[in-house]
Amino acid sequence: MSPIPPVAELEILSQGDEVVQGYTVDTNAAWIAQRATELGLAVGRHASVGDDPAAIAGLLFEAADRATEIVCTGGLGPTDDDHTADAVAAAFGLELRVHPQALEQIRARYATFGRELDVTGQRQARIPAGARLLENRWGTAPGFVVERWPCRLWFLPGVPREMRRMMEAHVIPGWRKRYPQLEAGRLVTVRCVGLGESRAQLLLRGLEHPAVRLGFRAAVPEVQIKLRFEADADEAFVAEYVEQVRGVVERWAYTVQDSTVPGSGGSLEGVVGRALLARGETVATAESCTAGRVAAALTRKPGSSAWMLEGAVVYSNAAKERLCGVPAAMLEEHGAVSEPVALALAQGVRQRSGATWGLATTGIAGPGGGTEDKPVGTVHIAVAGPEGTAHRLLRLPGDRQHVMDLSVASVLKLLHEQLS
Amino acid sequence: MSPIPPVAELEILSQGDEVVQGYTVDTNAAWIAQRATELGLAVGRHASVGDDPAAIAGLLFEAADRATEIVCTGGLGPTDDDHTADAVAAAFGLELRVHPQALEQIRARYATFGRELDVTGQRQARIPAGARLLENRWGTAPGFVVERWPCRLWFLPGVPREMRRMMEAHVIPGWRKRYPQLEAGRLVTVRCVGLGESRAQLLLRGLEHPAVRLGFRAAVPEVQIKLRFEADADEAFVAEYVEQVRGVVERWAYTVQDSTVPGSGGSLEGVVGRALLARGETVATAESCTAGRVAAALTRKPGSSAWMLEGAVVYSNAAKERLCGVPAAMLEEHGAVSEPVALALAQGVRQRSGATWGLATTGIAGPGGGTEDKPVGTVHIAVAGPEGTAHRLLRLPGDRQHVMDLSVASVLKLLHEQLS
Repeated sequence: MSPIPPVAELEILSQGDEVVQGYTVDTNAAWIAQRATELGLAVGRHASVGDDPAAIAGLLFEAADRATEIVCTGGLGPTDDDHTADAVAAAFGLELRVHPQALEQIRARYATFGRELDVTGQRQARIPAGARLLENRWGTAPGFVVERWPCRLWFLPGVPREMRRMMEAHVIPGWRKRYPQLEAGRLVTVRCVGLGESRAQLLLRGLEHPAVRLGFRAAVPEVQIKLRFEADADEAFVAEYVEQVRGVVERWAYTVQDSTVPGSGGSLEGVVGRALLARGETVATAESCTAGRVAAALTRKPGSSAWMLEGAVVYSNAAKERLCGVPAAMLEEHGAVSEPVALALAQGVRQRSGATWGLATTGIAGPGGGTEDKPVGTVHIAVAGPEGTAHRLLRLPGDRQHVMDLSVASVLKLLHEQLS
Repeated sequence: MSPIPPVAELEILSQGDEVVQGYTVDTNAAWIAQRATELGLAVGRHASVGDDPAAIAGLLFEAADRATEIVCTGGLGPTDDDHTADAVAAAFGLELRVHPQALEQIRARYATFGRELDVTGQRQARIPAGARLLENRWGTAPGFVVERWPCRLWFLPGVPREMRRMMEAHVIPGWRKRYPQLEAGRLVTVRCVGLGESRAQLLLRGLEHPAVRLGFRAAVPEVQIKLRFEADADEAFVAEYVEQVRGVVERWAYTVQDSTVPGSGGSLEGVVGRALLARGETVATAESCTAGRVAAALTRKPGSSAWMLEGAVVYSNAAKERLCGVPAAMLEEHGAVSEPVALALAQGVRQRSGATWGLATTGIAGPGGGTEDKPVGTVHIAVAGPEGTAHRLLRLPGDRQHVMDLSVASVLKLLHEQLS
């Protein structure tokens, strides 16, 4: 066993012409980085190069000189533009050999598709001498690990689905073993909607505690408050601290995700969908400014026909009248972007559809259409239910897309409040 | 004037803890890379580091040794974790000075928000000695250029909107001037929907011509066929060649974008919206499996209330009957996912809304709900108009999200055909 290197630092490398030429956004690097950061492993650098063996070898050589951990994705496939194994061999002066176990795994994998292993497929079994094989049960190209003390280099396929599973199956357990202090963390995430990151920071000022590492992450339209505890933190202390944080942001929090509780947390539409399913309740939507986006969010999860009945996209005033029974006089008096119209839309769609809940949005997404009274970003949302109708007036910042996204999240959050 | 360096190669750097820790996906790098690739400038590498002046300086120093062009985004803002100017000064031994013109531009920018320039804001006017200022008319932080022959380094803000405008206003004109051969290209893009990349390649086999560089780009749900000509290519030859390509993919092409024709091309929803606007026509939607996503696409562009009247999200059979008048017997006999129901939905929503065009989707997005007859990915789309109703049966691959996205694009494409 090697001793633990003093400072653990990760570099994330990816390769492929499509990445370096910008035709693919490198979401792999962000995913790996986030996973590492959540575990407490510092990320030093990301880098990408094209399908050029010399460039890959150069990048590997210099990165191995800086980092203690490297994850390199891509270039393990069967075709002529897959150069990773050759580049590793060149960078570190290793011989390339067909690895019998790798060959066996690839052959078995091909067999499940009813295919014979051909010469092209065999290319994927070439592994640098001394490298440890990483089985890929989710695709054909196996990965491998190379040790260049103090640096350890992990080579994974570039297909996001395969990369993620191999990270969870091989790399993260490897990190935990090499850096036992990583094992220590318990991460509790309070997920909020309608709250800005800087406001969240302000609200939690004074709650700092030496046993908790507090972090914030903006993932529009969400803000996530991340509480990191030691693994052996007292259960009662954790529960009390989380409750305190949750209390401060109660108006915005919709779920608490705990890394020690499988299945906890989830997206806003997922949490709302699960709650509706559990209660055997249904929903219908009447959307003006969001024009179908609330219905789209409510149907993102499979099985959504259990809770989603129907929706009306009431862009024109005529549609508001005909589809949701909003009186013409009300539209005339208050304008389409108003509290009475939001209430009438929610109640109208609820009544006509027979759904348990009616959701409505009406507002000015921009860039045009704003007035002094009702500037761009003015949005009324309403949720009609068995006990009455809730309403909220939003004053949203940002461009058309942003106003629409925040409106969708806000009306789902308002429904979530009624369901809680 | 400096002589032209022999091999032009670009490196793209970005910085920020949120990027390196994976909380932000670096879409800037992909955007810049794609722009450069389209212009014919080779991209060597992307790299990102966190908000650490020494790490940034180190990265700049080594990259300047490899590349002839560097674009570095981020770290130009007013706060304490914005370190780019300091890192540039450290990397190249330059003094940092408050640039009077930069200070003036920032002050003027603050004034438009009704704000006084404070000490924090002034930080953004510190520019390395000898650097050339790049005005930022879209935000507060100016950019700058540093020359380290043969490398030229461009520093831009990390906000994507500002970065993109500064690329178009400053960097790309700078590249064109330094590398006159880049000016040479004329890029014609035939944008297609419903066509796979490999099928596109197969279809165009035999059309290769030495005076045209042919490329393909998959941007789900689109495939773009890229034809690059010399700038002085004969106009008649270009027109004829483009017509030939367009003819082969006619069934799928919805627009031709020409880099020498400002305003040509655009997204499918933009092209459809413009056509509706020009004809003074309107649209209404009846969506089952896409559940609001067609309406959302039709309202993505500002001004969409001119053509979008209303939509019905008819997830349940009851909604199909009540909102679009689909006969219960038809649903019973053919099932909701069928040609007659798609036609009835499109005709029903058209008639009830009074719109010129009625668009409908009904299908099985999955992962559940598929049968032997109607597997996951079976989608019927229809467009009802003044001359009758067009229908298409789609057999779509991929997961729920993919099936939905392709269904949306396909029904917009079917409308586009009716409009042409």
